[in-house]
This record gives sequence, structure tokens and C-alpha cells, in this order.
Amino acid sequence: MIVVVTPNPAVDVTYRVAEQRLGETQRVLEVQRRPGGKGLNVGRVLAATGVTTHAVLPLGGAPGRWITDALDDLGLAHTDVVVSGETRTTVTVVDDAAHPTMFGEPGPVLVPAEWGAVGAAVDELLGHDDADALVVSGSLPSRAAPEVVASWVATARDHGALSVVDCSGAALLAAARAGATVCKPNVEELLDATGAADERAGALRLLELGAGVVVVSRGAHGIAAHTTDHVLEVPAVPDVAGNPTGAGDAATAGLVAALVGAGFRTGTGAPFDDDRLLRALRSAAAHGAAAVLRPVAGEVDPADVHRFLTTPDPDRTRTPA
Amino acid sequence: MIVVVTPNPAVDVTYRVAEQRLGETQRVLEVQRRPGGKGLNVGRVLAATGVTTHAVLPLGGAPGRWITDALDDLGLAHTDVVVSGETRTTVTVVDDAAHPTMFGEPGPVLVPAEWGAVGAAVDELLGHDDADALVVSGSLPSRAAPEVVASWVATARDHGALSVVDCSGAALLAAARAGATVCKPNVEELLDATGAADERAGALRLLELGAGVVVVSRGAHGIAAHTTDHVLEVPAVPDVAGNPTGAGDAATAGLVAALVGAGFRTGTGAPFDDDRLLRALRSAAAHGAAAVLRPVAGEVDPADVHRFLTTPDPDRTRTPA
Repeated sequence: MIVVVTPNPAVDVTYRVAEQRLGETQRVLEVQRRPGGKGLNVGRVLAATGVTTHAVLPLGGAPGRWITDALDDLGLAHTDVVVSGETRTTVTVVDDAAHPTMFGEPGPVLVPAEWGAVGAAVDELLGHDDADALVVSGSLPSRAAPEVVASWVATARDHGALSVVDCSGAALLAAARAGATVCKPNVEELLDATGAADERAGALRLLELGAGVVVVSRGAHGIAAHTTDHVLEVPAVPDVAGNPTGAGDAATAGLVAALVGAGFRTGTGAPFDDDRLLRALRSAAAHGAAAVLRPVAGEVDPADVHRFLTTPDPDRTRTPA
Repeated sequence: MIVVVTPNPAVDVTYRVAEQRLGETQRVLEVQRRPGGKGLNVGRVLAATGVTTHAVLPLGGAPGRWITDALDDLGLAHTDVVVSGETRTTVTVVDDAAHPTMFGEPGPVLVPAEWGAVGAAVDELLGHDDADALVVSGSLPSRAAPEVVASWVATARDHGALSVVDCSGAALLAAARAGATVCKPNVEELLDATGAADERAGALRLLELGAGVVVVSRGAHGIAAHTTDHVLEVPAVPDVAGNPTGAGDAATAGLVAALVGAGFRTGTGAPFDDDRLLRALRSAAAHGAAAVLRPVAGEVDPADVHRFLTTPDPDRTRTPA
């Protein structure tokens, strides 16, 4: 089982209008609502590919209840920590011509006892015999201390489960400092959090802090795993066009599924086997490409994943550091 | 008791952003949510001024549950007809410079049995000994038959209660045809629904169809009551500046409160006493002005209403038709 924490879930609403205009009343032609937040995308992709998954998330107010119902409908196992603040909503306005406009609410402020309840849920789930890994993915809500992520990473280590953290900013640094098995930012998040001038320097900074390995998703430019002495790179699956939203989350799902499938259970700083890491990167790339083929984030067709995994071996680069 | 039907309630969300821009991700600095829909504004103003009020509204999904909780918090008596479709949300984006941008969802489609349940709730409430009036205010949801409004008007007549209808389009015509005591559109709604070239012609059309009196709110230009043989006009309260949203709904509340306060119980086509109508128009104007002084729709300070009612008698015009 993979436990996936979404610290700041959202009701993702998409409004289709005839033509986006400011300063006017616009009739919404079509409304879509889906449970959002990067961790939920990861969890849904894992579940779609047959990996036992359990989502943990703080939920509050009517939007929180809506997500509870939506996850039930999707059949995704989940533990909801009911909080007093109202779960955020994001509204994305689209038409057939212009770039989408997105309005993002900041999310609720959780009190320490509520974060404590999230931590207790993580601890309880990772205590199960079949718990292999923890994934933490997505932003923290307003004014949350980055140390909450560190505490979950420590809990995973205590249970002998690996941890994969896809957060940004101070939360990413805290996860590295706590010895996350894998830190998995995209390039922008990595440079932003570390203040480094390039990807390798940023990755080394996280490794120095304590991360076991740093996996950096580069979108159309593939995915790379940094250790202190080398970089493994796998290119993106070629000629895949579609919707890139959520592809990074699918890649996280593919990464952790491959690590877990390899029977990977380790504490901090365990030596990483290159073949194992490359398998995980290829799985990440295949899952990411499969997500691009789906119109909405958080979905893959397992047949697409299988097809991309079994196409001829992609270029494989090992760059000595 | 005044029974107020809101056929298409909404969760009215306001997002404050630093500067409205299209095609970008915008951080929402401040979120406000309120139960919306014109009937709820009318009901809240009535309740604020001490008039016993009971709201009837179809509600569905998580937004519907949110409205239920919000009305409980406001202390407004309400009967919710639970429907399978999801209650609509409106999102208004504001900044300090540009005109607001509003995105309006179309609202759920109600099946006939759900409309029947709304009608049964109206019938039950108007059967109470203290039921004086029915107000129907606001749009109908998608694909609703305008005849539902006619059926509520007929129910009011059957119970000897007066009916005030502030709807638009075919629903306004259906209300007139059913003999609504008062049809209360604004000028645009009147011209749009009747296809008439001017206010008087439009009002005469509704009177011919069967409306007892047609009250037309003209915003800053006051309010007028049309009967077949004359027009009574009351100017707006002068020198009142603020937020005009919901002022028309407050005027409806003031109108019906004055009619009911006068012990006005009548069936269709009852002769209207000019003094009674003028008192009602003055009450409407005072309530509308009091609403302009409040930052959000659906609120008045009863002290403001009292002040505007007791200022020297406004110009009073009687125009022979």
C-alpha cells in the first residue's frame, strides 16, 4: 500500500465560456468539478494502475464534503481529517481561443491539533503490514509550518517505508532535511527552493541536506535522478501530444510504483542501485506520457502505460558528476 | 408571514484579486461566500426589519448544503426542497480598479416531481393562519417551465394571500396571466418580457394579461405603480450613494411589507386604493435606499429604513393615463 498525503486539496472547477472577457457578466456554458490537489492525482493514477493506495487529506466545510463524496464515487480509499477551515476551490475559466484564466483560493489555515490528526492518520496507515511508501504531493495551505512534511517523512522512516516528496519551497527543504528517500520537484521548484543557479547544483543542495535521491521532472525534456556522484536521465516518451496538466503527478505515481514494485524498502540514505532507479525513471516517463493522452489530470489508461514501458529502450544517459 | 420562493438560489462567491487579468493564474486574496438569489435577498431584508418570513427554495449537492447551513446561521426560517441537481454558484472577480467580472452557472434542471415538491411546500406554508403573502423573486433554473410560477400564484390566490412576482421573461408573463397581485419587474425586464416600446405599454400588457398592478423599479429614477387607468410614481430617496446590488430586492421587501402591514388580503383584480399603493411605493423606495447604504446585497439597517420613511413627503405624482 502507498499512502498519499495531499496537504491542500481543492475542488477544481472548470468553467467553459464562449469568450473570456473582463468586466462583464459571463454565462457559464459548461461546469466541471473534480477533486484536485497533486496528491489526489498521484493517488488516482496509482489506483488506476492497480496499486493499492490510501489517500490522507484534511477536508473542511461544504467543499470538503464534496471531495469526500467524489472520492467515494471514484472508489479511492481515503482517510479524511475533518478541519474547521473550508477546503479551497480553484476556478479555471476556459474558452476555445485564449489561455485559461485560473483563480486559486489560498486554502484554510489548519491549527496544530489538525496537523497532528493528519500525522496520526499517516502513522496509523504506515503501521499496516502492507504499507510500502509515503507520497506527499502538492502545496501546503496558508501559514502551514514546513516541518509538518518533515514529521511525515520521519514517520515513514520509523516504519521502514520509503518517502517521495513533491513539494515546493520551504517544505521541500524540510523534507530533504528530514531524509526523504526521494525529493521530486520540477526544475522550477528545485531552483526556487534552493536558490541554485542550475539543476545539478540545486539537486546537490537537497542531497547535502539529507535527501536520498533527487528526481527532477523536466516535462518534455524527460526526467533525471541525481545522486551525489552521478545523474541518470531518461528522455520523455517521444511524439506524445495532449494535456500536460497532471503529467508530473502521474510521473510521481509511476516512480513510486516502480520503486515499491521492486520490493524497495529502505531508510534514509540507503545506497541506490542504478538499474532500480532507471526502471523507476522509465516507469515515471511512461506514466507521465500516458497522462498526457488523457483530457484531465489524475487519469491514465493502464494500456498506454504498458505500451510506453515496452517500447524500445529509450536513450539512457549516465552523466558522471 | 410572508412566504418567499427563490426558484434558482446560488452560492454567491466573490474573489478579490490584486488586478484582474486574463490567461493567467491569479491568487485570490480574499474570498467571500453568501447565500444568493433575489428571493433570499428579499427574505433577509424582511427578516431584518422584523417581518415574519419563510423562505422556500430547491437546493442540491454540496452548494445546496452550504446554503442550508448559511441560512441556519442567519436565522432565516426556510424550507429546503432537496433536488438531485447541484445548486449553482456565481463567481464574481473584483479588484480596486476595473469593473467586476461575473461568471454565472446556469443552475440545475429540476424534474417535475421536484417542482411539485416546491409547490407543495408553498401550499403548506400559505395554508397557515398567519400567511399573508407570497413573493417569487429571481430567475428560473435551466429549462424550467414558466408555468411553475403561475401555479404558485394560483396557490396564493386559493389561500387568499397576495402574490408579488419579480421574475423575467416568460415567467413574468405567466405570473401576470395567473393573476399575480403585483408584478414587479425592473424597466429592462418589463420591456424584454413584453416586447413593448415603453414602460407604460409594457405595464398595460401585463395588466391585460391579468396582473392586479404592475410596479416597476427604475433604480435611481424611483418606482412606479401602473394600474389600467393611472400611474403612481415615487422618486428615489435623494443623495444616497453606495452599493446598488440588491436594492431592487430590498424594494420588493418594502413593498410587500407595506401591503401586508396594511392588512391587504385580496384576490386577483381587487381594486387598489391609491393611498395604500403610495404607502407601499414609499416603503419600497425607503428599503431600496437603505440597501444602497449596505456593502452587500440582502441587508438593510432598519434605522435607515425608518429615517427614509419619515423624511418629508417625497414628490408624489399621479399621472392620468
